[in-house]
Amino acid sequence: MDISNFAQLPEPPYYAVIFSSQRTEGDHGYAEMADRMADLASQQPGYLGAESVRDAQGFGITVSYWQSEEAIRQWKQHTEHQLAREKGRTGWYAHFDIRIAKVERAYGKAP
Amino acid sequence: MDISNFAQLPEPPYYAVIFSSQRTEGDHGYAEMADRMADLASQQPGYLGAESVRDAQGFGITVSYWQSEEAIRQWKQHTEHQLAREKGRTGWYAHFDIRIAKVERAYGKAP
Repeated sequence: MDISNFAQLPEPPYYAVIFSSQRTEGDHGYAEMADRMADLASQQPGYLGAESVRDAQGFGITVSYWQSEEAIRQWKQHTEHQLAREKGRTGWYAHFDIRIAKVERAYGKAP
Repeated sequence: MDISNFAQLPEPPYYAVIFSSQRTEGDHGYAEMADRMADLASQQPGYLGAESVRDAQGFGITVSYWQSEEAIRQWKQHTEHQLAREKGRTGWYAHFDIRIAKVERAYGKAP
């Protein structure tokens, strides 16, 4: 069991960006860029954490968590992230949906 | 590409239940119950859709979408779901986190 998959978050409220995506065939620089974006996101003001999973068929869900909508907006406008988003839109993803939500309640079972 | 992985949702606002989980080893009736719960959830009032993915290491994210907090509350209290939740808590999941959020904005790229 790898508990590092789970984001350690403060008490709500905070914001979530729910990103569902279907990858196209082949890597084409995706894995390296995905690692770079995860690293870069984690350095942004207001970043709280992220959870991400992708199956063998290339369908994935990544949820990133942020202190505020303003933090999400600033990350969206980050220059390097904008380049990655453009490559995602034109090549890496066949389909994606992004939903921005305010987390109001949270609970769980920790080991 | 399997676009049926993606939920077809109305315009926001609506609600999301973000369920991150780490499965324990072995099936122990899990797969059958998971299918049953997905089917049962989809029949509940206020259900809008769901997206779900789990990797080969047993880490998964399921996001279900609902019209209202009341619809989420009623599904949580559904008798058969309560039994499944108890088995999840005591056996199927080593760790899980549930976050309930109000989706405020959405956009994407459809094929």
